[in-house]
Amino acid sequence: MDYVYGPGRNHLFVPGPVNIPEPVIRAMNRNNEDYRSPAVPALTKTLLEDVKKIFKTTSGTPFLIPTTGTGAWESALTNTLSPGDRTISFLIGQFSLLWIDQQQRLNFNVDVIESEWGQGANLDILASKLAADRAHTIKAICIVHNETATGVTNDLSKVRKLLDEYRHPALFLVDGVSSICALDFRMDEWGIDVALTGSQKALSLPTGMGIVCASPKALEASKTARSVRVFFDWKDYLKFYKMGTFWPYTPSIQLLYGLRTALDLIFEEGLENVIARHSRLGHATRLAVEAWGLKNCTQKEEWYSNTVTAVVVPPYIDSTEIVKRGWKRYNLSLGLGLNKVAGKVFRIGHLGNLNELQLLGCLAGVEMLLKDVGYPVKLGSGVAAACAYLQNNIPLIPSRI
Amino acid sequence: MDYVYGPGRNHLFVPGPVNIPEPVIRAMNRNNEDYRSPAVPALTKTLLEDVKKIFKTTSGTPFLIPTTGTGAWESALTNTLSPGDRTISFLIGQFSLLWIDQQQRLNFNVDVIESEWGQGANLDILASKLAADRAHTIKAICIVHNETATGVTNDLSKVRKLLDEYRHPALFLVDGVSSICALDFRMDEWGIDVALTGSQKALSLPTGMGIVCASPKALEASKTARSVRVFFDWKDYLKFYKMGTFWPYTPSIQLLYGLRTALDLIFEEGLENVIARHSRLGHATRLAVEAWGLKNCTQKEEWYSNTVTAVVVPPYIDSTEIVKRGWKRYNLSLGLGLNKVAGKVFRIGHLGNLNELQLLGCLAGVEMLLKDVGYPVKLGSGVAAACAYLQNNIPLIPSRI
Amino acid sequence: MDYVYGPGRNHLFVPGPVNIPEPVIRAMNRNNEDYRSPAVPALTKTLLEDVKKIFKTTSGTPFLIPTTGTGAWESALTNTLSPGDRTISFLIGQFSLLWIDQQQRLNFNVDVIESEWGQGANLDILASKLAADRAHTIKAICIVHNETATGVTNDLSKVRKLLDEYRHPALFLVDGVSSICALDFRMDEWGIDVALTGSQKALSLPTGMGIVCASPKALEASKTARSVRVFFDWKDYLKFYKMGTFWPYTPSIQLLYGLRTALDLIFEEGLENVIARHSRLGHATRLAVEAWGLKNCTQKEEWYSNTVTAVVVPPYIDSTEIVKRGWKRYNLSLGLGLNKVAGKVFRIGHLGNLNELQLLGCLAGVEMLLKDVGYPVKLGSGVAAACAYLQNNIPLIPSRI
Amino acid sequence: MDYVYGPGRNHLFVPGPVNIPEPVIRAMNRNNEDYRSPAVPALTKTLLEDVKKIFKTTSGTPFLIPTTGTGAWESALTNTLSPGDRTISFLIGQFSLLWIDQQQRLNFNVDVIESEWGQGANLDILASKLAADRAHTIKAICIVHNETATGVTNDLSKVRKLLDEYRHPALFLVDGVSSICALDFRMDEWGIDVALTGSQKALSLPTGMGIVCASPKALEASKTARSVRVFFDWKDYLKFYKMGTFWPYTPSIQLLYGLRTALDLIFEEGLENVIARHSRLGHATRLAVEAWGLKNCTQKEEWYSNTVTAVVVPPYIDSTEIVKRGWKRYNLSLGLGLNKVAGKVFRIGHLGNLNELQLLGCLAGVEMLLKDVGYPVKLGSGVAAACAYLQNNIPLIPSRI
Repeated sequence: MDYVYGPGRNHLFVPGPVNIPEPVIRAMNRNNEDYRSPAVPALTKTLLEDVKKIFKTTSGTPFLIPTTGTGAWESALTNTLSPGDRTISFLIGQFSLLWIDQQQRLNFNVDVIESEWGQGANLDILASKLAADRAHTIKAICIVHNETATGVTNDLSKVRKLLDEYRHPALFLVDGVSSICALDFRMDEWGIDVALTGSQKALSLPTGMGIVCASPKALEASKTARSVRVFFDWKDYLKFYKMGTFWPYTPSIQLLYGLRTALDLIFEEGLENVIARHSRLGHATRLAVEAWGLKNCTQKEEWYSNTVTAVVVPPYIDSTEIVKRGWKRYNLSLGLGLNKVAGKVFRIGHLGNLNELQLLGCLAGVEMLLKDVGYPVKLGSGVAAACAYLQNNIPLIPSRI
Repeated sequence: MDYVYGPGRNHLFVPGPVNIPEPVIRAMNRNNEDYRSPAVPALTKTLLEDVKKIFKTTSGTPFLIPTTGTGAWESALTNTLSPGDRTISFLIGQFSLLWIDQQQRLNFNVDVIESEWGQGANLDILASKLAADRAHTIKAICIVHNETATGVTNDLSKVRKLLDEYRHPALFLVDGVSSICALDFRMDEWGIDVALTGSQKALSLPTGMGIVCASPKALEASKTARSVRVFFDWKDYLKFYKMGTFWPYTPSIQLLYGLRTALDLIFEEGLENVIARHSRLGHATRLAVEAWGLKNCTQKEEWYSNTVTAVVVPPYIDSTEIVKRGWKRYNLSLGLGLNKVAGKVFRIGHLGNLNELQLLGCLAGVEMLLKDVGYPVKLGSGVAAACAYLQNNIPLIPSRI
Repeated sequence: MDYVYGPGRNHLFVPGPVNIPEPVIRAMNRNNEDYRSPAVPALTKTLLEDVKKIFKTTSGTPFLIPTTGTGAWESALTNTLSPGDRTISFLIGQFSLLWIDQQQRLNFNVDVIESEWGQGANLDILASKLAADRAHTIKAICIVHNETATGVTNDLSKVRKLLDEYRHPALFLVDGVSSICALDFRMDEWGIDVALTGSQKALSLPTGMGIVCASPKALEASKTARSVRVFFDWKDYLKFYKMGTFWPYTPSIQLLYGLRTALDLIFEEGLENVIARHSRLGHATRLAVEAWGLKNCTQKEEWYSNTVTAVVVPPYIDSTEIVKRGWKRYNLSLGLGLNKVAGKVFRIGHLGNLNELQLLGCLAGVEMLLKDVGYPVKLGSGVAAACAYLQNNIPLIPSRI
Repeated sequence: MDYVYGPGRNHLFVPGPVNIPEPVIRAMNRNNEDYRSPAVPALTKTLLEDVKKIFKTTSGTPFLIPTTGTGAWESALTNTLSPGDRTISFLIGQFSLLWIDQQQRLNFNVDVIESEWGQGANLDILASKLAADRAHTIKAICIVHNETATGVTNDLSKVRKLLDEYRHPALFLVDGVSSICALDFRMDEWGIDVALTGSQKALSLPTGMGIVCASPKALEASKTARSVRVFFDWKDYLKFYKMGTFWPYTPSIQLLYGLRTALDLIFEEGLENVIARHSRLGHATRLAVEAWGLKNCTQKEEWYSNTVTAVVVPPYIDSTEIVKRGWKRYNLSLGLGLNKVAGKVFRIGHLGNLNELQLLGCLAGVEMLLKDVGYPVKLGSGVAAACAYLQNNIPLIPSRI
């Protein structure tokens, strides 16, 4: 099935699924095991403990669910809310759109706060809604931390501040799919009630594990939430947590060992260093975009994302063509523009297990692609801008000093 | 994380997750890929076409869902039924019990037909219920083809016969988790409306893919079924099938390539040969159990399972001890007795990518284990009985003749 | 290239190459690396230190040579001897024959002491030769510790005793290819001057690394030995050892990481436990052979090998047919009879990363094979004999207690 | 053993060992096999047939020897020459130096033609020596096709032309270690008698297989060559070739399957396309070096190598520092300057399974490194020059059009 073989490495710069570190590929290269043997619970126990660190929570309860981000969303919502509950949700791009669609199909009463694509969540409107909601009809604030379609990062600390300001008891549900373990994320400090991510994002694993973390308040809410759920029900997990066997149904042995190694690598590098690396890669990418004379889809610096950059192409160019040619000619995988921005933007994912030279190779490829499709880019300009920044900012690799 | 290392191979004889063939492990040993590139849809297309062959359907529509068997159950039910719908479900062991629990939690009106554990589904009662149901209040018959907890295989053709006899329009929903691709299974011929399995069973892959196949009648039913669902909604898949991109959310690249190789191996061996091999292994195991003077938990030959054998131990022995010692002393993983039969049975899974000598090694191990725990087995007796049968029945490996 | 695919695991019971533990396969699953980076010398240093433990030497100097056992032989000989030098060499089977052939082609004056195949080295003749050699014309005693063709283990301590008794300064060169790390082997205690093995034997790695260990006396000899050598010259290694870069030419990165893991697993199990496990497997195999009413090719118990058993078949049976059918029908790989014993013996290798249940599966397969070719074996008899012994002797797996 | 872990991929730009394609890593991810089963000879047969294509020979006989390039050299020499034989050998860099050292230690009478490092073989002197050698005392011309230390490619067709011109019967022995399968190489057309390479070079496999190909004339010479040899003796291989079992001693199963896949990938890309890709990468690298204002160690365009570029640094810079920092800071592996050019050059290997964006990432890294060590490079300049060339010359990936 390698009928798409091209020489050399594939340059994977979509914002998920991302590159898997070789030690993780190795760790997953194994036969199945009996998950009821003593070994798997012992392993799971370390995972549940350590995964909390990437959420920066000590009081949260994590669930490792054999599903994708979409399933993780569903788990967050159905365990904490009941049909008809009013939620506030921000529509700022394709992924927030899909989450809102899910909320509606799950029969919540979704109060949508829409922004132009490329802008962040409109927190002024949130403030006014919270102010007006004396009766506390709002049961949850649902927000995508980092909108992967437009490269917009929302400031979660401000959301918490508003909730506190208005002493509003709404649950604070956060999609951290393209942020957790790559951007600054503080579940406890920011009073997040449910945070979630997927294995194929910053954790740099294969797809297949939705990681959901619930605050004590969220766990409490789950006791009375009346949304119908079985597969996604936290109750079943909690029952097996108590028994010490941990799994209400069969986990992927490979993903468990993979997660163990992924966490080990993150802790070896240092979570703060991982976040700094993403900041460096994001910054370098934006400098390149600027040097090319192109616009970032993200409209203000405060929303700039360090995990994905959506680049706006001039109207006479079809961004889809750039992505297609990248794959056909340079073995480069870029992200398409989705929905409203289809054809108008292409995306450079700089998420997960990546380093600077990989990014620079990608940027050089993008320059050639821009030229290929008729944009008068000065070859080398973006790489030069990125290098000028990186050359002063990349630290030595700690293990090699 | 190999803190449980024991010398030599682990002998994996639980009825799932099962041994992964080396070529499949190899195929999955890879980095992530962009699932929106042309390669992944091209691969998916072959999978959707070929996976139908293991269901023996030409009219069915398969869904490859990033979930486990529990999720596949939920997908089968929520897409075809509405809250309050009456289902008939057979309680014959732990897994049928769990499915019934799910049906109840999903708010169906479950009409349970219970049998003693070790017996098959009571089809006489089904017949009387169908006969009585002139108003067609029964919306679905839910049956576990092979109850993994007790080693009982139900005769699905008889269920179809009864439905036809009473001209009953109920949907026919089948859990084929530990049967499909190992036991005789004929979705079209038996008029099954939804059949499902999990990747970690007879397909011999890691856990993480629920495979659900829907008949045209089931697809039709999904249009009006009012059960709430998003992650498990077939509609989203069908939308992307039409677009030719196939995936409403990110699939596991590794499992797709793994499934491709798993299917290739099955077709290379020949599906009928795979089924015959399971029959051979099941038969040999039962002969060994008999030689040991122990009882099969399955009460009648008509229900004997070719994928798992539950062995009843004498009252003075704790079957859990056998399983524990198998792991501690022989690097052998056997199945525990679950729920009602905990401590009373242990299970030998002979499912998936296994051959005769692997089974014989397991049987020899079980003999020593029985002796270890004080059962007066004649060492070698079970192996002798199994060998006597196998020696006359194993064919040459076709590719090596 | 899996055109020889058969369902289930291949049962690999040739006395090399042997089964590779899964953690080792994982460790080797990697890209190349620059062997001149600081990482590879750091790794190599640990290997050179730790590999001495399997030779039981503290004063020896190990060489990890990118070659096979044949190359390791050549390295041992050419570094210590000069053309025309008189060596004493024991001809007791195919591998000692091949080593003698090499010695002759390298222009040594080989004094061959021949025994019937199935017997060990004739140490009485050695004694008389040593006694007669007042002039010390004998420069080296070359002996195969374990003759893989016949399953004969020679007693090396007796050779040392004779050398000491006659105060003979001859070098003591030992082929430990199918013994080191599986049988009791004491380089320092037995005054062995060069010992060697290959990676694909008891170390349970792929083929490709010849491991040669030289005593100080051997190193001294290498300074004056006049055999022509370049690739196999220890001098080049020693030069790079001094520089701390270790490699005169490119090593296999994969084998280095593989060896690291292989040694870790051996030390985790405990070298003495590894040797005890081989003893157990050898003993069990011999009990099975006896139960089948067949003869061990090894003529006396003192020579019984714990790494390979050569089984003599009755004259009316062609042992080659057994090996062929094993592969064609049972996915079982047995060792052929070689040269003088071709057609007369087949060999069961019980060497390397193996456990008891794997062996019992093999023994059951052999029973069926014997029946297949017309030998009136009582099915189950060998397994019963082996089980009776093993059931009383297998310890719990330490990491799992 | 991943104590040297750095985030992201290692950028491997040493001229060997080189990057292994993922499909090859997968193919090698396997347990050992019995090499005496029918499968291994069948596989070997296809390898021996197909490997001839990368040498462009139909009349040659290939040998796949478990050794490195150094061993392959020894095999080429000892099988064709006798002690005392006069060889002509060109000293132009570290690897030709080492080969000459080997020739001397193997007791040939080596007539060395030395050039300044950075120049190619002096063929004028060869011409005069051939002209003078009426007595045909020259038995072999030994030449390194591509000197990896200096990035110099010699024109082999001219050597053949001279031999023909002077009707000289000397054997034509070629080290193609860093050329075969990457540069234009025509064994038959150029009348090469022995050509050799190593698996870890353009074939992009792990180290461990020396591939030697002998012309009929070389095979004839091997019958009378009196150099002592056993492990490297072609005779043993030829004996087993005749028997159809192919292996005089145990091959690495993993390398056989790896070579199969490596060849498949090369043929899928097309050998001419592989060579064109190397030409493109070499050209792009040289343009970058020029843009940086640095000198190529290779003194004339006619010798420019498409597999490695040795870059001369200004006298005030230590090139070793560049290599060290590349590894410590950018996870980049560059080649050191060796011997005479130590500290004066660093080397960019652009050999094996590489594509353009990988190279561009490396070039960007080198620019930052140059700046790091105080060279006033204009960041982006080299990448710009390389991109300008590549953007016009990279073809679409055939399998993806």
